[in-house]
Amino acid sequence: MTIDQKLLDLGIELPPVPQAAGLYRTFLLTGKTVTFSGHLPIRSDGSMITGKVGVDLSIEDATFAARQVGLNILSTLRSAIGDLDRVDRVGKILGMVNANADFTSHPAVINGCSELFLEVFGAERGVGTRSAFGVSGLPANAAVEIEGVFYLK
Amino acid sequence: MTIDQKLLDLGIELPPVPQAAGLYRTFLLTGKTVTFSGHLPIRSDGSMITGKVGVDLSIEDATFAARQVGLNILSTLRSAIGDLDRVDRVGKILGMVNANADFTSHPAVINGCSELFLEVFGAERGVGTRSAFGVSGLPANAAVEIEGVFYLK
Amino acid sequence: MTIDQKLLDLGIELPPVPQAAGLYRTFLLTGKTVTFSGHLPIRSDGSMITGKVGVDLSIEDATFAARQVGLNILSTLRSAIGDLDRVDRVGKILGMVNANADFTSHPAVINGCSELFLEVFGAERGVGTRSAFGVSGLPANAAVEIEGVFYLK
Repeated sequence: MTIDQKLLDLGIELPPVPQAAGLYRTFLLTGKTVTFSGHLPIRSDGSMITGKVGVDLSIEDATFAARQVGLNILSTLRSAIGDLDRVDRVGKILGMVNANADFTSHPAVINGCSELFLEVFGAERGVGTRSAFGVSGLPANAAVEIEGVFYLK
Repeated sequence: MTIDQKLLDLGIELPPVPQAAGLYRTFLLTGKTVTFSGHLPIRSDGSMITGKVGVDLSIEDATFAARQVGLNILSTLRSAIGDLDRVDRVGKILGMVNANADFTSHPAVINGCSELFLEVFGAERGVGTRSAFGVSGLPANAAVEIEGVFYLK
Repeated sequence: MTIDQKLLDLGIELPPVPQAAGLYRTFLLTGKTVTFSGHLPIRSDGSMITGKVGVDLSIEDATFAARQVGLNILSTLRSAIGDLDRVDRVGKILGMVNANADFTSHPAVINGCSELFLEVFGAERGVGTRSAFGVSGLPANAAVEIEGVFYLK
């Protein structure tokens, strides 16, 4: 089964290809490595999932926001390499959660993105290394930001 | 002298191999590069060194916590490659300190990990690039989190 | 035109080569990749641009601080590889803004560094991937910290 077929089976429609929010590229392909910039939880209608996790959003809503970040990353990735079947594996992700000093469930939130990658690429290829932590703030008050690396076949 | 002999000489016993705190791998080996996920200051008995550095922990205690993170990283690394003598050098570390807005001694804290790597691998191989900064919070209220890269021979 | 000639044309004089603020190297050259440590907005006279962005510094002042970080990075890079014409392209930058919970203009601040790299290396080579986010604090109360990767020809 191709990744595009798997996306169909999962009922996943990728959002529009994200645009850079500043002077940078959303991805860079060097050899068999795709580095992707910090991506944000932009919905398909262009709006952003915003707020402090644990204050403005529940952990569940923030986990959904992290999944939405993952969908945007996949959209960038598909536009970068043309065909998601070229992905050998998820390399690493760096997951930033917009949260105050008393929040401690960053891994549960970033799991929203990790679970998406697991569903799409499977256990062998879809689970990479990861760090999750709290940040004092994010661009446009986004709830979550994730950057990382994919490796191609 | 092998690295294992050096650990013995230094009186260092590595803690149990860390488990992932979410949906990720603790390390990924690609070619001669080992990428390791964010590691936390888990003691050998499984408990975590927690708290805001500068409030709940002194700089000295936090530096010790960063050393404990380094021990956990070495434990992951040994389980990943079997023999620490295969390490060519420390590549980079990203050091996150759980601290409030008025804390400014992040480098002193992360030195706890860097000094361990220097002791174990020596000045040529044990000192890589680094960033240290304050984060609004960390998983399970850990005092320090460190991720990074090692290069193998 | 060489990069050094372009720096002259732009009226840019690079600051003194930055020294590490702890137990690390400011850069590491592996193959054709230069990884550089977190750099800070140190002025040519050795003083630091400090403070919380949005409180102690305006966005404009912080953007200038990010440009100053970029100048320090270029100084490290030139000392590392001898000749900036050896740079193939900017790889990625990770931009940390020392800011409180209500600050949301991190991309505008980090653009200060990105614009410098664009001026110096041009649109093809000077624009890489990027993440920008807020941190609870930075070493020595620096306003901005940036780390990243350059690729050589």
